Amino acid sequence: MARSVDSDRVRLIGLDPGLRHTGWGVVDVAGSRLSHVADGTISSNERLSLAERLVELYRGLGAVIDEFGPGEAAVEETFVNKNPASTLKLGHARGIALLAPAERGVAVHEYSANLIKKSVVGAGHADKNQVELMVRRLLPGCLVARSDAADALAVAICHAHHRATQRAWLKPATGIGQRVPMPRAAT
Amino acid sequence: MARSVDSDRVRLIGLDPGLRHTGWGVVDVAGSRLSHVADGTISSNERLSLAERLVELYRGLGAVIDEFGPGEAAVEETFVNKNPASTLKLGHARGIALLAPAERGVAVHEYSANLIKKSVVGAGHADKNQVELMVRRLLPGCLVARSDAADALAVAICHAHHRATQRAWLKPATGIGQRVPMPRAAT
Repeated sequence: MARSVDSDRVRLIGLDPGLRHTGWGVVDVAGSRLSHVADGTISSNERLSLAERLVELYRGLGAVIDEFGPGEAAVEETFVNKNPASTLKLGHARGIALLAPAERGVAVHEYSANLIKKSVVGAGHADKNQVELMVRRLLPGCLVARSDAADALAVAICHAHHRATQRAWLKPATGIGQRVPMPRAAT
Repeated sequence: MARSVDSDRVRLIGLDPGLRHTGWGVVDVAGSRLSHVADGTISSNERLSLAERLVELYRGLGAVIDEFGPGEAAVEETFVNKNPASTLKLGHARGIALLAPAERGVAVHEYSANLIKKSVVGAGHADKNQVELMVRRLLPGCLVARSDAADALAVAICHAHHRATQRAWLKPATGIGQRVPMPRAAT
């Protein structure tokens, strides 16, 4: 189901898990260029049981992955809340967000919230508005109707960046001070 | 996939979720009689990524549910640990334990650890050994190679008990002081 991962071209899906709303964002990477494909939010019905809500999230994510066929996935490391009950709820949703791509053979990468902000805005303590502003600048045409979708696109951008860095390190060196290009917006 | 739920006869699966080991136990209920069908543990490979481990648990549970075809499922409400990172990990595994039956149309019920102990041993603060002893007494023939499986069978016994109570309340009263029978061991 997952598309083959070409060395320079790959489609990525970023996920921002939550029991009420799970954000998702799909981007295409070609060399050091990024382009927006689609983004959105999967919401679960609060009147259903916890198990039924997890089924909604699982099927919703499965449909998105099947439609867009990403080669790799990236998921935000959920903020560990001080309230253990909230942390447990987040854990349920995050388990589903990790399972849905992995069950389809799509490799899943995880990034901390700070690393994502640093990759997208340049500072680990950027606020939500700054992240959304940079996501809109890097990915013209994105919808981000809800902030969950902006966060999901930010995870995808972060993964694209780290992927490029890792690939540059793996390539034979072409000279001292070789520059690792940061993926940039399509123009 | 799930068997039809007959009024007096039903097959139940109990689940005790954990990322390393998820216990499962299947029992048949016929009126107020309980009998053991099967039990076991699904373990995930600690050397794999978190997403891959969740896939192992999901597929393992799916295979058990498909093999035994329970009509209803019961899952222990995970103990909320003081360590938020542990709570989050448990949440991931519990999300999978709720999803696997619900995705197959099997209704999922949740019970607190205290209520389970109270149903099986008669005291909310019973220790693990007491629970296992009572599970072995109520379900002759059970394997419970690991304590996770004993806990899973205890959840199933608890659900059988509460199911019988709910059904008795729903039936037209046949007399004052109608007794609700506690499911008992097959002899």
